[in-house]
Amino acid sequence: MKPGSSLMKHYLQFKDLRAEEYAYLFERAAIIKRRFKNYEKYTPLFDRTLAMIFEKASTRTRVSFEAGMYQMGGSVVHLTTGDSQLGRAEPVEDSARVISRMVDLVMIRTFEQAKLERFAAHSRVPVINGLTNEFHPCQILADLFTYIEHRGTQDGGAKAADCLRGMVVAWVGDGNNMAHTWLQAAEILGFTVHVSTPGGYEIDPVVAGISGTHCYKVFADPMDACRGAHLVTTDVWTSMGYEAENEARKQAFADWCVDREMMAAARPDALFMHCLPAHRGEEVEAEVIDGTQSVVWDEAENRMHVQKALMEYLLLGRIG
Amino acid sequence: MKPGSSLMKHYLQFKDLRAEEYAYLFERAAIIKRRFKNYEKYTPLFDRTLAMIFEKASTRTRVSFEAGMYQMGGSVVHLTTGDSQLGRAEPVEDSARVISRMVDLVMIRTFEQAKLERFAAHSRVPVINGLTNEFHPCQILADLFTYIEHRGTQDGGAKAADCLRGMVVAWVGDGNNMAHTWLQAAEILGFTVHVSTPGGYEIDPVVAGISGTHCYKVFADPMDACRGAHLVTTDVWTSMGYEAENEARKQAFADWCVDREMMAAARPDALFMHCLPAHRGEEVEAEVIDGTQSVVWDEAENRMHVQKALMEYLLLGRIG
Amino acid sequence: MKPGSSLMKHYLQFKDLRAEEYAYLFERAAIIKRRFKNYEKYTPLFDRTLAMIFEKASTRTRVSFEAGMYQMGGSVVHLTTGDSQLGRAEPVEDSARVISRMVDLVMIRTFEQAKLERFAAHSRVPVINGLTNEFHPCQILADLFTYIEHRGTQDGGAKAADCLRGMVVAWVGDGNNMAHTWLQAAEILGFTVHVSTPGGYEIDPVVAGISGTHCYKVFADPMDACRGAHLVTTDVWTSMGYEAENEARKQAFADWCVDREMMAAARPDALFMHCLPAHRGEEVEAEVIDGTQSVVWDEAENRMHVQKALMEYLLLGRIG
Repeated sequence: MKPGSSLMKHYLQFKDLRAEEYAYLFERAAIIKRRFKNYEKYTPLFDRTLAMIFEKASTRTRVSFEAGMYQMGGSVVHLTTGDSQLGRAEPVEDSARVISRMVDLVMIRTFEQAKLERFAAHSRVPVINGLTNEFHPCQILADLFTYIEHRGTQDGGAKAADCLRGMVVAWVGDGNNMAHTWLQAAEILGFTVHVSTPGGYEIDPVVAGISGTHCYKVFADPMDACRGAHLVTTDVWTSMGYEAENEARKQAFADWCVDREMMAAARPDALFMHCLPAHRGEEVEAEVIDGTQSVVWDEAENRMHVQKALMEYLLLGRIG
Repeated sequence: MKPGSSLMKHYLQFKDLRAEEYAYLFERAAIIKRRFKNYEKYTPLFDRTLAMIFEKASTRTRVSFEAGMYQMGGSVVHLTTGDSQLGRAEPVEDSARVISRMVDLVMIRTFEQAKLERFAAHSRVPVINGLTNEFHPCQILADLFTYIEHRGTQDGGAKAADCLRGMVVAWVGDGNNMAHTWLQAAEILGFTVHVSTPGGYEIDPVVAGISGTHCYKVFADPMDACRGAHLVTTDVWTSMGYEAENEARKQAFADWCVDREMMAAARPDALFMHCLPAHRGEEVEAEVIDGTQSVVWDEAENRMHVQKALMEYLLLGRIG
Repeated sequence: MKPGSSLMKHYLQFKDLRAEEYAYLFERAAIIKRRFKNYEKYTPLFDRTLAMIFEKASTRTRVSFEAGMYQMGGSVVHLTTGDSQLGRAEPVEDSARVISRMVDLVMIRTFEQAKLERFAAHSRVPVINGLTNEFHPCQILADLFTYIEHRGTQDGGAKAADCLRGMVVAWVGDGNNMAHTWLQAAEILGFTVHVSTPGGYEIDPVVAGISGTHCYKVFADPMDACRGAHLVTTDVWTSMGYEAENEARKQAFADWCVDREMMAAARPDALFMHCLPAHRGEEVEAEVIDGTQSVVWDEAENRMHVQKALMEYLLLGRIG
C-alpha cells in the first residue's frame, strides 16, 4: 500500500473497520498464531518499522506489539514521552509529519483521543490506537478472538466469527474506555452488552459514538447484568490517570466485584475476561480470575496475535 | 574494515571528511533512498549493531538513526544517560573501551565535544556525533543532501554536489552548533555562509575550527544576510541546555524571525530549511515554514537516508 | 524445547548447571566468539525474542545481552521498572504469566533473589539471572571463560575447562553477590577461593548455598589471600543499593585495594579481573587494572559471548 494513498487506513477506534474486515482479521490471527506455535518462519513485515509512542506506562501493550512486530520480521522504535516530547517541544502535527516520514506504522498510547486523531490526520502512514482515555480497540480485538478460540467453530474466519452474533457480554464496573469500545464492537458485530456501573461512572453513548441503543442494556444490579451472559468481563476500578480518585472509587465500586455468585448467574459455560493488571479482591475475586472459567492469560497472549494480523492488514492488506 | 585499524574513521565534526568523501556520500544516499522508496531489500549491515547514547532528549536523531539502521539490516542498542551513566559511574574512557568491544558503531548525543572526543579516542569502533554543544554534522549532511535533491543535476554524486559550489546560505539567528557546522561545510565544499546573529550570540570561528574567514560574511541586519541567498535557514532561539536564558533570548532575537520579507530578499527560488522542532512565530513565521519554499519535512526524512550512507561508509566504505 | 516442558531450565544461580554443562558452554562460547570475529553469519535464534527486565541500572549487562541476542539473529524487548511495574501494579506471578506468553526467554536484573525465583516459578520460558543482591552467575561465567582463554589448552571444551581444576582465585573485598557466586563455581568446578573481606563484610556460606567449606579459605589479610593465586579479583566497595553506606565502606575497605604488592604475592602469571565499573584508587590501583596482568576488557567482551552460548543452550540446548 502506498503511504498517503486513499487506501491507507488508521485504527483509531473499533468502528474504523467493518464486520467483513473483522472476520478477515480473526481468520488471519488464527493462521498467524498457528504458524508461530509451529515455529514456521513468516516474516512479511521484514523491511518495515513500527514506532511506538507511549505517554502512559505499559507492559502488555509494549511487549505484545514489540514482540509481535519482531515475529513478523519487522523492527520497532520505542519512544516514551520523555524521549518524544509529543506535543510539548513541537505541535503534534509536526511530530506526525516527521515520524511518519521515517517509519511505516505508528502505535500511540496517550490520553485524549483528540490528540491521537490530530496525529493521524497528519501522518503519512497508518496509526493504531494503543489505548486512549476514550477507547482501547486492540484489547477488544483480542477479547473477541479469545472468545472465538474458546467457543467458535474453528473452521475459518467468517464462520468462526458467527459465534459472536447474539452473544451477551456482561460489563461489570467502570464505564470507561473498555466499556465504550465494547459498545462499538457490539453494534458492528451484532451482539449485546449488559452494562452495570456504579452511579457516577456510567457509560456515555455519545463518547462511545454509537448510532443507537439496541446494542446494550443498562442494569443497576451487576447480578442482573450477568444473568445469561456468555462472557463476564471487568477492569480495574482506577484506570491510569485517575489515581487521585482511588479512595472514592473503592467505596463506589465495592458491590461491583466479579465473584462466584455473579459467574453462577451467567451461562454455565460463560468465560471470564480481564484486560489486566488485575487486583484480586477488588474488581474480581481470586477464585474467579484464577478459576476454570477465566481465560485471562490466553487473552493477554492473543493481544500479540491479533495485533500481528492488524499490522499485516494495515500494511499489506488485500481487502480494502 | 578491521576495528581499531588505521583505516577506521570517526565522524565527530564536519571537517572529519574531505570533499571527495562528501561527493561519495551524497551519491550513496541518493541510491539508498531510491532503493528504500522502491521497497528493494538492501541489508549490508545485517550483522552489525549500533549503540546510541543519548545524554539529551531526541526525536529526530533517535528515530532517524534507529529506523535507518533497521532498514540497512542492522540492530540498535539505545542507551539513555540513566541507563548508561556515561562519565558518572566510570570514566568515559572505560565506557568507550567496554561498549566498543560489544558493538560495531557508536552514536553519541552529549553536551561537550571534548567528552565525545575522549570517548572516540578509546573506542575500537567508529563514533558518530549525534549533536554536541559545538557541532551537529549529521544535520548539515542532511541539509546539503536536501539542497542537492531540490537543485542538483541528479546525475550522480560528484556532479550533483557541484551545485553546492558558489552557493550562498543565509544563517539567521543563534551562532550555535548548527552555525559552526555550516562554517566548516562551507570551507570544505566551497560555498559562502551569510551569518546574522543578535549581539552577544555571535559565531566563534575558533570554536568552529575553520582555517580562514573567506567562507563566511557577517551581517548586522538579517535582511542583508538573506539578500541573494540560495538557502535561508535558522534554528530555535533557545537550544537544549540554554532554557534558563529563554526570556533574555526572546528579547534579543525578536528581529531574527525568518519572515516573508526576508525570503523575498533571497533568490526567487531560495529554499527554507530548519532542523526542527520549530516554534512558529518565534524564529520563523508560519507562512514561511508552511510555505512553498520550505523543504523542512524532506530535510527531516533525509537525516535518515544520509545517515544510512554515513554508517555504510564508516563500516564498509570503499574509498579511504 | 517445548515451553513449560520438564526439559526447561532456568539460570537463577551458578549451581543451576552441572560441570558437564559448563564444559559444553565454554566450548560453545569459544566457537560462537570465533564465528563472530570472522564475520560468519550464525543466527540460530532468528525467530526468538528475549525480554530484559531491569530494576537496577546497567550498561554491561544491557549491551552484552542485547547485542548478543542480535548477533544470534534474535530480538530484544527492554523493560525498565518504570515501564514494567514488576511487582507494583500487579503480582510478580501475573507478570511472569503474561510476559512468558509473549517472549521466548527472560533476563531479570532485580534486588531480591526471591523475586527472581517467584517470577521463574510462574514463567513458561527460561529465566536468566542478570544480577541480584545474592548472585551474579553470568559474570562468573564470563570470568571463567576469560581465564580459560588466557590459560587453557584451547583444544575444546572439556579439556579447556580442565585448567580450572585446582585453580586458586583470590577474592579481595566485599563478601557480596560476586563472592557468593565464586563459591558456588568453586564447588561445582573444583577450584579454591581465597576470600579476604573487611570485618562486617564477610561472605555468608548460607546465602551462597554451598554444601561444604572445602571450596574456600578465609584470610584476615588480603596479602595472604593473594599468595599463590592464579587469579586476583575484586569489585567496587559500594555495590548498587548500598550507596548510603558509602563513607563507612570507604574506611572499612581502605586496606582491601588490590595493588602491585598483592599482585606480586600471587603467581607470576596471575591474571587480574574486575566486573566493572572500576574506581581506580579505591578497590584497585590504576597500575594494576591498566597493567599487563589485567584482562578486564576481555572479561567485559566475554560477557556477550558466554551469554550467547547460554541463551543458545537454554533455548536449543542439545545436552539436558
